[in-house]
Amino acid sequence: MRTRAAVALEAGKPLEIMDVELEGPKAGEVLVEIKATGLCHTDEFTRSGADPEGLFPCILGHEGAGIVIEVGEGVTTLKPGDHVIPLYTPECRECPSCLSGKTNLCTAIRNTQGQGLMPDGTTRFKMLDGTPIYHYMGCSTFANHTVMPEIALAKVRDDAPFDKICYIGCGVTTGIGAVINTAGVEIGATAAVFGLGGIGLNVIQGLRMAGADMIIGVDLNDDKEALGRKFGMTHFVNPSKVDSTVQAIVDLTKRGADQIGGVDYSFDATGNVQVMRDALECSHRGWGVSVIIGVAPAGAEISTRPFQLVTGRVWKGTAFGGAKGRTDVPKFVDWYMDGRIEIDSMITHKLTLDEINHGFDLMHEGKSIRAVVEF
Amino acid sequence: MRTRAAVALEAGKPLEIMDVELEGPKAGEVLVEIKATGLCHTDEFTRSGADPEGLFPCILGHEGAGIVIEVGEGVTTLKPGDHVIPLYTPECRECPSCLSGKTNLCTAIRNTQGQGLMPDGTTRFKMLDGTPIYHYMGCSTFANHTVMPEIALAKVRDDAPFDKICYIGCGVTTGIGAVINTAGVEIGATAAVFGLGGIGLNVIQGLRMAGADMIIGVDLNDDKEALGRKFGMTHFVNPSKVDSTVQAIVDLTKRGADQIGGVDYSFDATGNVQVMRDALECSHRGWGVSVIIGVAPAGAEISTRPFQLVTGRVWKGTAFGGAKGRTDVPKFVDWYMDGRIEIDSMITHKLTLDEINHGFDLMHEGKSIRAVVEF
Ligand SMILES: NC(=O)c1ccc[n+]([C@@H]2O[C@H](COP(=O)([O-])OP(=O)(O)OC[C@H]3O[C@@H](n4cnc5c(N)ncnc54)[C@H](O)[C@@H]3O)[C@@H](O)[C@H]2O)c1
Ligand SMILES: NC(=O)c1ccc[n+]([C@@H]2O[C@H](COP(=O)([O-])OP(=O)(O)OC[C@H]3O[C@@H](n4cnc5c(N)ncnc54)[C@H](O)[C@@H]3O)[C@@H](O)[C@H]2O)c1
Ligand SMILES: [Zn+2]
Ligand SMILES: [Zn+2]
Ligand SMILES: [Zn+2]
Ligand SMILES: [Zn+2]
Repeated sequence: MRTRAAVALEAGKPLEIMDVELEGPKAGEVLVEIKATGLCHTDEFTRSGADPEGLFPCILGHEGAGIVIEVGEGVTTLKPGDHVIPLYTPECRECPSCLSGKTNLCTAIRNTQGQGLMPDGTTRFKMLDGTPIYHYMGCSTFANHTVMPEIALAKVRDDAPFDKICYIGCGVTTGIGAVINTAGVEIGATAAVFGLGGIGLNVIQGLRMAGADMIIGVDLNDDKEALGRKFGMTHFVNPSKVDSTVQAIVDLTKRGADQIGGVDYSFDATGNVQVMRDALECSHRGWGVSVIIGVAPAGAEISTRPFQLVTGRVWKGTAFGGAKGRTDVPKFVDWYMDGRIEIDSMITHKLTLDEINHGFDLMHEGKSIRAVVEF
Repeated sequence: MRTRAAVALEAGKPLEIMDVELEGPKAGEVLVEIKATGLCHTDEFTRSGADPEGLFPCILGHEGAGIVIEVGEGVTTLKPGDHVIPLYTPECRECPSCLSGKTNLCTAIRNTQGQGLMPDGTTRFKMLDGTPIYHYMGCSTFANHTVMPEIALAKVRDDAPFDKICYIGCGVTTGIGAVINTAGVEIGATAAVFGLGGIGLNVIQGLRMAGADMIIGVDLNDDKEALGRKFGMTHFVNPSKVDSTVQAIVDLTKRGADQIGGVDYSFDATGNVQVMRDALECSHRGWGVSVIIGVAPAGAEISTRPFQLVTGRVWKGTAFGGAKGRTDVPKFVDWYMDGRIEIDSMITHKLTLDEINHGFDLMHEGKSIRAVVEF
């Protein structure tokens, strides 16, 4: 069949909107009509050429929602008409990682997904001239139709609006999941969130849900302060306006008889390795847990003195907020529908597929939280 | 009173054995007769001048055992005749850290201890000419008598031999505690231990106690292989004989359908920052936990690509094996007396105080696990 897609032909170039050929689902695969897709910073990371593993031409996008059109042979858990959210972290429930109970990083299709291919080692997308187009993060939601493995689709309720729940496909789950799955924040905790973008604001609302007492937001852009407060942030630090961000956070959190400051939990949602270090070092001696969410530029390394860890800080990271997609994503959709998760006000811009490049401009200008393309 | 001590007069010089003046215990303090003390790598770190926070003249030593001689005003939990192990990590049970239930890093006397002083800001030791001598890690066990705060002494049973249980004052507890308190190793786990010295061998016996399946030891010195195996090591890697230590460990641990190698837990017991990185990177994607025990040279930093953490590895550290001294050390002594912990064969050398410098030579030559000075 033919479908319309925004294709990244080359690193660093705007996406090109065009018709492409899409082959139907093979065994274990599902054809999905994408109804809406968000633009995440990770798409831009690859589009811009910063991602050393980026493959071109490809169809980007990994934050979608849609409807099952057709299922391939052997697919048992989905049928045409089901509403689904594509998962860049699949959940096969059979691989050693899924069975470990310790991680959401399913390995069932990891190798081919990393190569921009379906599990059988080929692509379903082609240019009209026959050139194969790579898949992206196993999703490629910047197309009106896409083909996905069954294990990479979360079935969700039918009454949830696509243009909102698409955000659960990455940003919402990553941010809230980092708090509840990876960090395990408890009521009364203190926390710092570095970077108040589409991910960081969801970390903030996750912290509010978890009952954190003090939620310190950190961003270079003062415009983010009001936004942060809207979702639960209690204090704001602009690194360009203090001598030391770490010291500013330590000073804000000096509590108890020994007056040792530091947050119980910190989160990097910038992708900047110096920020990751600050996030670790502003966490509390003895028990501070710092979680890296951001994706760093190629080759960039984090560092610190090992004494920071010997004196009890823990350095962790999270992918897709530690969420098991098929299990947790439907639950997040329920939480949204029950009013427990805020999404509507985070979708700051609606675009058509033809306007998708404008979405990246808005991201660069720091004007959008999430721009969503509706088909 | 006068007592005999090995005094570090200057960084980098051999210790000098001499009579020193010791003032009696003030309020909340206890005079202890040291019966035996081990020599730990951390003493050598300070003696050699590598420790940027080293203060001289001082009396080193932090791995002792002895008998209470006299108690100061207000001391209620100890009396003359009690057998005790000095604690460089005290346990006041009242500070925010002790009350947190999340850390063993009591802060009650942290500031003065770091300055080589008793909690009232003075020293109890003096040279015969009146020059104050700094305390070391709040212990100074390289003296026949020392004064310690009550909260920094663990009362232990009377029938345990001093020349063995002194090792519980640091090495044994640090190594075994890193496994059971900090890493929380479970039955059937795989693990790698870097550095098979006085700490690393105790990590190995801790892993055996915890029921680990595969215990990979790593050391540049082939002589350590036989020792490691004695305490439960199942595989040995000498980094100088493989292209990549990380790859060698990954290859040894490829298990399960996806053939992803990596250990569940890894431990640095060398103090080398490149080794700390290898320890992290040889741990399993998704859930590997790497624990830093070693003390790095001044200014040295650890680094890695943040992707290592984003894909599920956790970087931690441990001080005194996460043990709460007054609570856990008596339990470790019981375990030793019950035959559950092996110590005797790790005490490879017995010295008199006059021979203490020879103990540091043995350490450098890699010939001792622990040299113990008996008074
Ligand atoms: N681990 C995962 O599973 C996962 C998932 C999605 C996104 N990400 C990553 O998370 C990061 C954030 O994504 P996003 O969509 O929120 O991006 P975004 O561009 O919307 O937001 C980033 C925010 O960080 C702020 N910022 C930049 N540099 C800063 C600095 N030095 N100090 C303080 N603030 C700074 C910016 O002003 C902006 O508000 C990106 O690196 C993205 O690739 C990771
Ligand atoms: N965190 C704590 O609470 C704590 C407590 C005690 C000691 N320590 C530290 O633990 C470390 C180990 O102490 P120890 O008494 O066992 O020392 P040690 O000298 O007895 O043993 C160190 C071992 O590491 C090996 N080694 C050195 N470099 C190596 C390398 N690059 N690769 C592989 N092996 C290497 C040596 O051959 C030796 O066998 C020291 O840094 C010490 O200061 C920390
Ligand atoms: Zn994303
Ligand atoms: Zn799986
Ligand atoms: Zn020690
Ligand atoms: Zn305390």
